[in-house]
Amino acid sequence: MAGTDSTQSRISGGPAVVLAEPQLGENIGTTARAMANFGLSDLRLVAPRDGWPSAAARKAASGADWIIDGATLFDTVEGALGDLQYVFAATARDRDMVKPVTTPAQAAGHCVTRIAAGDKVAILLGRERTGLTNDQVVLADAILSIPVNPAFASLNLAQAVLIFGYEWFRATTGNGGSTDVPPSPVSADAAMLDLYKTRRATKIEMIGLFEHLERELDDTGFLYPPEKRPAMVRNIRNLFQRTELTEQDVRTLRGIVASLSRARRRRIP
Amino acid sequence: MAGTDSTQSRISGGPAVVLAEPQLGENIGTTARAMANFGLSDLRLVAPRDGWPSAAARKAASGADWIIDGATLFDTVEGALGDLQYVFAATARDRDMVKPVTTPAQAAGHCVTRIAAGDKVAILLGRERTGLTNDQVVLADAILSIPVNPAFASLNLAQAVLIFGYEWFRATTGNGGSTDVPPSPVSADAAMLDLYKTRRATKIEMIGLFEHLERELDDTGFLYPPEKRPAMVRNIRNLFQRTELTEQDVRTLRGIVASLSRARRRRIP
Repeated sequence: MAGTDSTQSRISGGPAVVLAEPQLGENIGTTARAMANFGLSDLRLVAPRDGWPSAAARKAASGADWIIDGATLFDTVEGALGDLQYVFAATARDRDMVKPVTTPAQAAGHCVTRIAAGDKVAILLGRERTGLTNDQVVLADAILSIPVNPAFASLNLAQAVLIFGYEWFRATTGNGGSTDVPPSPVSADAAMLDLYKTRRATKIEMIGLFEHLERELDDTGFLYPPEKRPAMVRNIRNLFQRTELTEQDVRTLRGIVASLSRARRRRIP
Repeated sequence: MAGTDSTQSRISGGPAVVLAEPQLGENIGTTARAMANFGLSDLRLVAPRDGWPSAAARKAASGADWIIDGATLFDTVEGALGDLQYVFAATARDRDMVKPVTTPAQAAGHCVTRIAAGDKVAILLGRERTGLTNDQVVLADAILSIPVNPAFASLNLAQAVLIFGYEWFRATTGNGGSTDVPPSPVSADAAMLDLYKTRRATKIEMIGLFEHLERELDDTGFLYPPEKRPAMVRNIRNLFQRTELTEQDVRTLRGIVASLSRARRRRIP
């Protein structure tokens, strides 16, 4: 299955692929290769266990060197998602969270729509053995769930990215349809985005809102007792995460939180 | 023949995967793994260069042992295809042959139809470096062409089988329809509804939340000046209205507003 035409311009501007705490350099490399196969290029690494750069990653990338060279490194998942507006968390396990669950085809179609509207999007994948933590999934807007044989359900990082990439490439090129209708550029989503007067909030703005609200709620004792705090925080974050807030919405909500809190502080003797 | 081997009964009856003169045992193993992920089980090997059985293949199969154990060995491609009625040759290159060229989705759909009609079908893949020879392609009824980034077009055996397997699994289970056709049991809507632990909030509950919040914001001076108040209230109501809140969400939000407000009041001298 050879046939690489390096004279052809590379496709860019697609969804980012964010690997949270990947363990083996080899898996980063095979992921990069899968990205290259389907025209993805924005690889983001959060605290890779074996360090970065990685000779094992470069070797396993089988020539997708520009993705390895262009990979960006982050200390935290929050940092890696900061400039993005919409994130799919790839997870096989049921999460007790109210988020849309999408197939690869649905996620890819949604990415096309979002990107056309000016948003930056990504898929987020967790550690090889354990997958994403609940706190990482909370930061996502939707779940990416790949249907597999339940008797042998484990997909590695590169396999999951390959399948998403395949659907992404189909969705952007209109290639490969049969019984499937390729996602049209104008969908219900696009109509919804048209209604937004301002752009979708980035993850940095969302996290800023969350932390602001949580500080105030810590102060008032709402997030008490401590052993229940993590679940309460996830619950509240998920509630707002579901809303597809615009930057204006985030400003409004922070204004509300600040207003209620400022009045309280002013009166502290 | 693999189809008569009772050890391969997990999910059986799907298309066979025929590897013509594969070179590395590792690639046979990763192919077996990809087959297991999507419920394929009939693996046929034509003259594997490094011999058979292969410890490298078993290791790379990551637990898909029943496929390695059940693999059948042939001297020639003709022998491996002997009992089949319809074969797709996986190739990226143009072959100047008059054969239907299909995408993975089309090929998978066609396999479902053929198998339902009692036929035995397969995909045929060539040597890692060189792919299928023209003489091998001639034996096939159709070409399987996987759309990839032309700037990085090389897919390895396991990647090609993974993508075909993914489409096969979708076609047989009805899983994972495209964005425009979501009537499957795992459509985003259905999954989202399943995740709701409580019912959607009623309008009365929503209005209760709005009025509660607005009372507090009147109190802190946030909804000032009066001539702007109606627009600000509409804005905030729309923001929450968009969220599809559950009754539990409404209780959480009212709890937050109450907590911030109680703390504020306590501190009024």
